[in-house]
Amino acid sequence: MPEKKQLNDLFLDTLKDIYFAERQILKNLPKMAKAAQSEELKAAFTKHREETEGQIERLQQIFEMLGKRAQGKPCDAINGIIAEGEEIIEEYKGSDALDAGLLADGQAVEHYEMARYGTLKNWANQLGMKDAANLLDQTLQEEKKTDALLTKLADAAVNRKAA
Amino acid sequence: MPEKKQLNDLFLDTLKDIYFAERQILKNLPKMAKAAQSEELKAAFTKHREETEGQIERLQQIFEMLGKRAQGKPCDAINGIIAEGEEIIEEYKGSDALDAGLLADGQAVEHYEMARYGTLKNWANQLGMKDAANLLDQTLQEEKKTDALLTKLADAAVNRKAA
Repeated sequence: MPEKKQLNDLFLDTLKDIYFAERQILKNLPKMAKAAQSEELKAAFTKHREETEGQIERLQQIFEMLGKRAQGKPCDAINGIIAEGEEIIEEYKGSDALDAGLLADGQAVEHYEMARYGTLKNWANQLGMKDAANLLDQTLQEEKKTDALLTKLADAAVNRKAA
Repeated sequence: MPEKKQLNDLFLDTLKDIYFAERQILKNLPKMAKAAQSEELKAAFTKHREETEGQIERLQQIFEMLGKRAQGKPCDAINGIIAEGEEIIEEYKGSDALDAGLLADGQAVEHYEMARYGTLKNWANQLGMKDAANLLDQTLQEEKKTDALLTKLADAAVNRKAA
């Protein structure tokens, strides 16, 4: 009978999930930047693409700490969120509401990442992997900042409307 | 040529997305509660199931305000998150790490909902739908509280480990 899976297995499984997700996000961000109408939103997606490259490198460092090959595991959640973004680009092309839809999709991506990195950081601490916890926290802080920036852009749209 | 879709269309599309998601979550929470090992986690999922019923009623009220039939639109993101939870229940059955996995999945669900309700509230304000914005904000606050409770349970696990 195989041994029961433990927290270290769950940590590795979830690391593979977010590694897959980050690489999908990296591929998708240029499409989001290209589709965005406002310069601020284009810039936000472009900047986050650069950050995502660094976040992927941090994940590779953690795989190395574990003595494992960096490897993704298909994640239906992120595929679903990205597919919704593609649908918005198609259905709202040329509409004033396009950027609102892209912002919403970007925030759904950020929230997925914040949930995952918060969990992984927590588990790294439980497993006594302090260096990994630090790397995961750096990324978590970047995701929170990106979400705050997207929220600011979304609120600016509300304020313009109210003015 | 059909008219371009606008913010009110995006609002309705996203309302259908979260309406579908909430009904999937409602069906799934009893499975999560049944699988959970700790009494606190069982209680958290059971309580959130009751809240979810109220959140679905609020969405139905908003469909009514729009003069539309309450109708879901399949949402791959929530289906993906729920599928990951089912995988954890299967793979970690009988393991000490099961609750950690369920907590993580629950937080991914909450984050998806927080992103969507934050966006919908914002759009309701832009569209001048103050009553809808209030209903959406009530749900958003409940989701934030649920996420905070799940975070507290996850942190308690870290502290137990450290003690």
